[in-house]
Amino acid sequence: MASVNRQWLLASRPQGKVEESNFRLVEADPPPLAEGQLRVRVDFLSLDPYMRGRMDEARSYAPSQKIGEVMVGGTVGEVVESRNPRFPVGETVVGTGGWQEQFVSDGSGLLRVGGRGLPSSVWLGAAGMPGITAWYGLRRIGRPAAGETVLVSAATGAVGSVAGQLARLAGCQAVGVAGGGAKCEHAVRDLGYAACVDHRAPNFRQALRAAVPKGIDVVFENVGGAVLDAALARMNDHGRVALCGLIAGYDGVPIPITNVRPILVNRLLVQGFIVTDHMPLWEEAMAELAGHLRAGRLVYRETVARGIESAPGAFLGMLRGENLGKQLVRMAP
Amino acid sequence: MASVNRQWLLASRPQGKVEESNFRLVEADPPPLAEGQLRVRVDFLSLDPYMRGRMDEARSYAPSQKIGEVMVGGTVGEVVESRNPRFPVGETVVGTGGWQEQFVSDGSGLLRVGGRGLPSSVWLGAAGMPGITAWYGLRRIGRPAAGETVLVSAATGAVGSVAGQLARLAGCQAVGVAGGGAKCEHAVRDLGYAACVDHRAPNFRQALRAAVPKGIDVVFENVGGAVLDAALARMNDHGRVALCGLIAGYDGVPIPITNVRPILVNRLLVQGFIVTDHMPLWEEAMAELAGHLRAGRLVYRETVARGIESAPGAFLGMLRGENLGKQLVRMAP
Repeated sequence: MASVNRQWLLASRPQGKVEESNFRLVEADPPPLAEGQLRVRVDFLSLDPYMRGRMDEARSYAPSQKIGEVMVGGTVGEVVESRNPRFPVGETVVGTGGWQEQFVSDGSGLLRVGGRGLPSSVWLGAAGMPGITAWYGLRRIGRPAAGETVLVSAATGAVGSVAGQLARLAGCQAVGVAGGGAKCEHAVRDLGYAACVDHRAPNFRQALRAAVPKGIDVVFENVGGAVLDAALARMNDHGRVALCGLIAGYDGVPIPITNVRPILVNRLLVQGFIVTDHMPLWEEAMAELAGHLRAGRLVYRETVARGIESAPGAFLGMLRGENLGKQLVRMAP
Repeated sequence: MASVNRQWLLASRPQGKVEESNFRLVEADPPPLAEGQLRVRVDFLSLDPYMRGRMDEARSYAPSQKIGEVMVGGTVGEVVESRNPRFPVGETVVGTGGWQEQFVSDGSGLLRVGGRGLPSSVWLGAAGMPGITAWYGLRRIGRPAAGETVLVSAATGAVGSVAGQLARLAGCQAVGVAGGGAKCEHAVRDLGYAACVDHRAPNFRQALRAAVPKGIDVVFENVGGAVLDAALARMNDHGRVALCGLIAGYDGVPIPITNVRPILVNRLLVQGFIVTDHMPLWEEAMAELAGHLRAGRLVYRETVARGIESAPGAFLGMLRGENLGKQLVRMAP
C-alpha cells in the first residue's frame, strides 16, 4: 500500500454552480489499524448527483458535508490489510469510502461483493446504489402493469438507464427524456427505450406528446422543472410519479411545479424517496439486478475518469450532463 | 307538487371569476313519471367548490357542465311521487338532483337516509360527500398516528371542519389554516383545533411556523398555492399530503408548487384524490360520521341561503370564502 493517501476535501461551499476551486487535494498519512479494522484500497469512486446537495449548507436528507472533510462518495475496492475476520485480505468490498485512495473501516456499512461473476464497478452502478434506486422507485412506487407507459427522465444516466430497462422487462412501454441527440440515440439503440425525447429541443412538449400516444402511467423523475411539468400534462388517471431527483434545481435554479392541477384532477401519487431509507431491500434488489446483468438482459455504460486528480472535473462534467451512463473515477490512472 | 319546476342553467362559461350572469333561471314543466321512476322535491341544495371546475371547458375529473343544462349539484329531499317500490313516498333521499326544485329519477345514485336520527341537511355536509371526502383523505391517505400534527387548510369549510375534528378524534394535534380572524376563532373555539392561522395575515409564514412546533406530519390540502408552499416548508420526514382541492386556483390564478425540494428531501407522499372514486367505502364512512354526529363528538356549521333564487349569489359568496361551514340553499324560502 502506498505510504501516502491522497484525498479530496471540500474546500468551500459553491455559490451557485460548483467550481473546481471548491475542492482541495491533500496528502494524509494512513493510520495504523486497530483491532477489528481493515484497510481498503479504492479501485473505483462513484460520482453521483446527490453529492451536489451535500455541498450546500441547506437542510437535506443527509447532514451537509463539512468544510475540510473528505468528500463523501461510494467506492468499490479491495481489502489490503485486515484485523477483522469478516473481511479477509483480497475480498472485494463496496461501501462509502469517499474521494480518497484508501480508507480504514471497522466493517460497518461495507458489503462483500466478490465472487459473483461481475466486474467490480457494477456494484457502484447497475447493481449498486443507482440500480437499487431505480429498482425501488419503479417497483415500490411506480408499480407499472404490463402495457403501461413509463416515462424516465435522465433516461441514460446511472439510475434512469436501469429504470427504463426494468420497465421494459416488466412489459411496459419505456419512453426516455434526455439532454441531446446522442443520448437519445443511445437510449433507443442500446437501452431498449421505445422512444426518447430531447428536452433541449425547442419542440420538446410536442415531441413528448407524440412519444406517449396512450398518455403516461408512471414517471420516474430525476430532473424536475419543465420536464416534470410537461410529463404531468400527459398523465393518465391514477398515475404515479416516483420523485428520485431534482437535478434541474441543484445549482439553486427554481424548479416549481407549475402544472399542479393534474395531481388533483388525475388523482396522481407523487412520492419522494431516498434509497438509503430502504436498506432491508438492498440484498433482494442486488440479487435481481445481478441476475439480469449476468443474463445480459440489463446493459450499462460507464464513463470512467482516470486518476484521483480527475475527480472534481469529472464531477462537474456529470452535473453538466456530459457523461453517458455511470460516472466513475478509476483511482489508478 | 308545484306544477312548475324552477331550474338554474349554466348560461355561459366564466371568464376568470364567476358572475351571476353565468347562470339563468328558467321554469320547466315537470314530466309525468314512467314505470320505475320517482319524483323528488328538493329540500336542500349543496353548493361546493368542485362546481367551479365543471363550469370550465378544461379537462377535469368529470365531464364539464354543458351550456344550457341544469347546474349539477348534490341535493337532499323527499320522495313526493313514486312508481319505484324501492323509494316510497315520504322517504328522504340524497343524490345529485342539481340546482332545481324537483327532479325525476329512476333511483340510480340515490341513497335512502331517513330514520337515522339526524337532520336531513347533514347528508350534504358532515355525513355526506364533504364529510366522506374528509374521512377518505385523512384515513386512507394521511393515515395520521396519535400524537402527530395534522394541518388542514380551509379549516372551517365543509370538508376541512370534518378533517380537523377527525384528526383530533384520532389523537392528533389539529392545526387549521383559514381566511380571516373570525374563521380562525371559530376553528379553535368550536371545532377543537389546537391553533388556526390566518392565511391573509401578513406574517402568515411565521405564524404557521409557530403553530406547528413539532413540524407537520399530514396536510389535508384544500387550497394550494402559497398555503401549500408554506406547509411543505414545515413537513417532517415521510409526511403525507392529501390533495383534496386547489380552490386558490379555481379562477385561473396560477398555483405553482414553488417549494418542490421538500417532496424529495423529506420523502413526502402527495396524493390527489376524488371521493367519488371510492363509492364502496361510502357506507362505512357515513355510518362512522353519523355515529360521531349523534354522539356530539363531531360538530358542524351550516350557512343556509333561502330560496332557489339565492343559489348563484350564495355560490359566489362561497367561492369568496364568505360562508362558515357547509353552504346550503334551502329551496323553500
